[in-house]
Amino acid sequence: MKLSKFMGLAAAAAMIALPAFGQDAEPDLTPPTGEIGYIFTTFMFLVTGFLVMWMGAGFSMLEAGLVRQKNVTMQLMKNITLFAIAAIMYYLIGYNLMYPGDGWTITNVLGAFSPAAMEPVGLADTETDLTYASVGSDFYFQLMFCATTASIVSGTLAERIKLWPFLIFTVVLTGLIYPIQASWKWGGGFLDANFGFLDFAGSTVVHSVGGWAALAGALILGPRLGKYKDGRVHPMPGSNLALATLGTFILWLGWFGFNGGSQLYMDTAGNVADISRIFANTNTAAAGGAIAALILTQVMFGKADLTMVLNGALAGLVSITAEPLTPGLGAATLIGAVGGVLVVLAVPFLDKLKIDDVVGAIPVHLVCGIWGTIAVVITNPDATIFGQVASIAIVGVFVFVVSALVWMALKVTMGIRVSEEHEIMGLDKAELGMEAYPEFAKG
Amino acid sequence: MKLSKFMGLAAAAAMIALPAFGQDAEPDLTPPTGEIGYIFTTFMFLVTGFLVMWMGAGFSMLEAGLVRQKNVTMQLMKNITLFAIAAIMYYLIGYNLMYPGDGWTITNVLGAFSPAAMEPVGLADTETDLTYASVGSDFYFQLMFCATTASIVSGTLAERIKLWPFLIFTVVLTGLIYPIQASWKWGGGFLDANFGFLDFAGSTVVHSVGGWAALAGALILGPRLGKYKDGRVHPMPGSNLALATLGTFILWLGWFGFNGGSQLYMDTAGNVADISRIFANTNTAAAGGAIAALILTQVMFGKADLTMVLNGALAGLVSITAEPLTPGLGAATLIGAVGGVLVVLAVPFLDKLKIDDVVGAIPVHLVCGIWGTIAVVITNPDATIFGQVASIAIVGVFVFVVSALVWMALKVTMGIRVSEEHEIMGLDKAELGMEAYPEFAKG
Amino acid sequence: MKLSKFMGLAAAAAMIALPAFGQDAEPDLTPPTGEIGYIFTTFMFLVTGFLVMWMGAGFSMLEAGLVRQKNVTMQLMKNITLFAIAAIMYYLIGYNLMYPGDGWTITNVLGAFSPAAMEPVGLADTETDLTYASVGSDFYFQLMFCATTASIVSGTLAERIKLWPFLIFTVVLTGLIYPIQASWKWGGGFLDANFGFLDFAGSTVVHSVGGWAALAGALILGPRLGKYKDGRVHPMPGSNLALATLGTFILWLGWFGFNGGSQLYMDTAGNVADISRIFANTNTAAAGGAIAALILTQVMFGKADLTMVLNGALAGLVSITAEPLTPGLGAATLIGAVGGVLVVLAVPFLDKLKIDDVVGAIPVHLVCGIWGTIAVVITNPDATIFGQVASIAIVGVFVFVVSALVWMALKVTMGIRVSEEHEIMGLDKAELGMEAYPEFAKG
Repeated sequence: MKLSKFMGLAAAAAMIALPAFGQDAEPDLTPPTGEIGYIFTTFMFLVTGFLVMWMGAGFSMLEAGLVRQKNVTMQLMKNITLFAIAAIMYYLIGYNLMYPGDGWTITNVLGAFSPAAMEPVGLADTETDLTYASVGSDFYFQLMFCATTASIVSGTLAERIKLWPFLIFTVVLTGLIYPIQASWKWGGGFLDANFGFLDFAGSTVVHSVGGWAALAGALILGPRLGKYKDGRVHPMPGSNLALATLGTFILWLGWFGFNGGSQLYMDTAGNVADISRIFANTNTAAAGGAIAALILTQVMFGKADLTMVLNGALAGLVSITAEPLTPGLGAATLIGAVGGVLVVLAVPFLDKLKIDDVVGAIPVHLVCGIWGTIAVVITNPDATIFGQVASIAIVGVFVFVVSALVWMALKVTMGIRVSEEHEIMGLDKAELGMEAYPEFAKG
Repeated sequence: MKLSKFMGLAAAAAMIALPAFGQDAEPDLTPPTGEIGYIFTTFMFLVTGFLVMWMGAGFSMLEAGLVRQKNVTMQLMKNITLFAIAAIMYYLIGYNLMYPGDGWTITNVLGAFSPAAMEPVGLADTETDLTYASVGSDFYFQLMFCATTASIVSGTLAERIKLWPFLIFTVVLTGLIYPIQASWKWGGGFLDANFGFLDFAGSTVVHSVGGWAALAGALILGPRLGKYKDGRVHPMPGSNLALATLGTFILWLGWFGFNGGSQLYMDTAGNVADISRIFANTNTAAAGGAIAALILTQVMFGKADLTMVLNGALAGLVSITAEPLTPGLGAATLIGAVGGVLVVLAVPFLDKLKIDDVVGAIPVHLVCGIWGTIAVVITNPDATIFGQVASIAIVGVFVFVVSALVWMALKVTMGIRVSEEHEIMGLDKAELGMEAYPEFAKG
Repeated sequence: MKLSKFMGLAAAAAMIALPAFGQDAEPDLTPPTGEIGYIFTTFMFLVTGFLVMWMGAGFSMLEAGLVRQKNVTMQLMKNITLFAIAAIMYYLIGYNLMYPGDGWTITNVLGAFSPAAMEPVGLADTETDLTYASVGSDFYFQLMFCATTASIVSGTLAERIKLWPFLIFTVVLTGLIYPIQASWKWGGGFLDANFGFLDFAGSTVVHSVGGWAALAGALILGPRLGKYKDGRVHPMPGSNLALATLGTFILWLGWFGFNGGSQLYMDTAGNVADISRIFANTNTAAAGGAIAALILTQVMFGKADLTMVLNGALAGLVSITAEPLTPGLGAATLIGAVGGVLVVLAVPFLDKLKIDDVVGAIPVHLVCGIWGTIAVVITNPDATIFGQVASIAIVGVFVFVVSALVWMALKVTMGIRVSEEHEIMGLDKAELGMEAYPEFAKG
């Protein structure tokens, strides 16, 4: 059995006398008992959690590749510091605000205010319930979703926002905005209890939330100098498409953790088979999005467009995130492909509205986040179109309004935009005094 | 036990009263029963599968780093789209063509034509056999091997092939060529049943297949303009060795999944110990290949050559892939080292034949794929030199001939090579209208 | 349960009738028996081991990004070849020297001289003890720590050291220096047995060891030409901060394996919950270090400094490495933050001493390695300040003295420094004849 590849399930069924199972033709189908399920699920959270953590690097590379050379250091700075801020804010406030258990401040609307606490070392002296996973692993996994939300915002606002107001917004987003709205669904709040809202891994709870916050910021911040001049859209191509592609591959990889880990249990054969479905569906949705963008840009523009293909893959991933389990491979591919089409159409549409989104985060995460959330009804009979749309709207209004208020407050008090002179010079030299590629001559 | 590192097996044996196992000096050696083995193996496929998926990023970075600046966008485009195509073709045709079970169209030669289907959600309403792993995880894992095969081809043909004919070839390769020949061995076909062919993780089934397809393409496509002019070989150095090195590290990492997951079971102590052997052997073979190339280039050329060291590491990895289990660490190092030597010798040899392989994929994947397949007989007594060589030849002839026919058909119909003018201008500007590094001045 | 996110432990406790566990309100808390614990721990080593392997890529990118353009190829070359050398030396000598079991050459001081050997395939014909993990997985995991130690050295000595003396030093470091001192603690030697030294994952055993070896090298090698001229420190900015940031993210990710795997067991609920604590603490310590460096550089220099933030994150990681288990999230954040402060202060301090450390490896790995080792006493009552400080000193003196002797011997015999002319020209062209970015014009 070690020396030849295996032949799939059909053949497996025929191979009834595997040494490991003795001569017994009837395999024992007992589910795991005792600590075993707990170990499986906890380890699953750690593995999928580190994949989601890795998405932080993905956003960082994607955005560093899509901004111009003079703003790369700033984009890197924002990405690594927002990740650090998310870690600290989610510990201090976010986790218990999102998962209050029985301790809601306002039932099903506002969670608990207290820092996260893990189990004691070795689970000593505790009456630990072992039917789920360790709190430490759950905290670790969920934190990475919070950080992802913040990563989405940084790309849209690149090349013109000051460092510190962005970081202060990140504090509010990761400490309050994200966890409060996430509690409504994943913490068992009113969207979960009263609206029958279904969002498996966060097309709405993570991606559109990041998108709404980014949109509010983009509107208040305004477009980059010269982006919309003389009635025309002036493209400002990214400085390093190799990094952008690397970032996309990283995000694609990390998404297996993002969607797969959201199964939340790996303690039975049924659960691990579901996680497998999710992995395969996630992959094929990304493929569908990439191919759709490839073909569409070739047809529309006469030339295949790499940045659109990259965003198409990401669009496919966002689109499948609300329901990566119930579709089959074909449906998942199509759901992703629609996402890819939406991105190709949404990017010029935003430009028409003079909303300047440097990396295309609003098309990818907001537009496809909405699409993915609605698409749940196609394959999951438990979802209702009302429940989905109402939840999208409620979350959207909340995040957009609160984000706008925070951005406005920051604008009025400390200012959020660098000076024209600094924007032209580039944020790296002007704001940070450090260039990303100091020795490469400018073309 | 948590506060001090452990002392290896010898000491472990002495430490008979670990709290976790009570005071019982005789540990219970019962193998897992019921669903547990299924969960272990399935999760193993997901983890090793995402490592193999990550190799897609590795090829992408390796090739983007080894082509010239003017062709980087195109190389990135090919790598991400081929990965997407593989996902879709392997779902539509490839998987059941490769693993037909009892449903061969021509017994042991041509598999079944139908799209892949996973188990239902939650394994509900199924008489599922739990002695192996979920179909979803198996599909996911095997798909990544198919994608790897396509990745190999793109590097060889870089800098002169058009996008769309390359993608059409990829459709045929991932949907038909790869799965058909793979069914002969891993699907239980005639190479497995009648030739005793042994290829643990695919030195032949994956790597030489990619190499043969690339060779056919390179011969029909011809070398890059100016590569072999005036009887001399004109080196065209890669534009970004940092990316090439990153790609090599990614591939090295992904290979643990590639070889380790090919154990196909992690349901017993024996199987997980074997996977451990494979991880360690895979690592040391890469090390052997890198060191061999380091020393050989220093001796031959008076200067250590980084691109050769990178290819040496990859050569070591390909060489151990046909049998990563039976060798000990010493033998694995030597098998890898021979691969490193072969690459250093094969690169100039190909140039002598005026076969232009931009990234050295033929030396690495074809030459070392053959070497690794033959080397199985050194450490695995179940292998025969006849079975190995005959299978290499059969697979080689099939893949080379069919690939050549497809390349020829594409050449005759739509053309496969960009115009001279476009080749000189660079594929990025000419074919895609998008540069990878638009702001970096050219030296 | 699959369609809605879960609500943390409190809610989990309330959810007493999960189908997977039948209707039984009292979950069965039996720990795994038989082979199951062995499979869990072994697979844990493979997963955490590949994460630590990935740190090799992290160091490679970090260092390639922080050296000047003309020395990038050399830095890449050193990083990939040192990794290969570590693999081979740790197999040939290191592993049994570090984990001699009962076979010490000098009891508790000098281990056994013999190559590593794994279990036979399939564990056949062995009376295998299954209370720990496979030797293959343990070897694989521990090897990666040895390689990490060598990676630390290469950054400090960049831009002026010759390739071959560096590689010869790496042979001695990975084959003798690292394993000998590591045996004193992790092999059960005198620091473990007699000093009560606690170093969970290697703030001292790995990081400060790399730091001492680097410091000895830096003192004997001398600073780069022009670094300290006319009584001033001349900054020599890194050529690619995107790669440096990527490297930092890679290291951050890899560190979950580094610290988490050092739990050494995943066979019980208590152990996997501890690994979860470690993952969460490791993450928050990195965040603390990054934020501390961010704020401190803003306050001290008026501008946030990206390279300091990157090193701050790494400093946080090194600081938590000696004790990632006992702190809570708050303490872990603070321990990391102190590390971030130390790095920002140590970098200019080293410059004052005219010790030229190109990437800041001595501040990060040596200074914070010491800090982290001492910080164990804050949260772990089993640690004594005497045991920690004495062990730091003993390891430090040993590594520094032996390293200095080896560096001196290399200097006297073959020379360790390139010529002035070569240093000015850059090591890539002068020593390797190959540029990392041959087509990018120099600014």
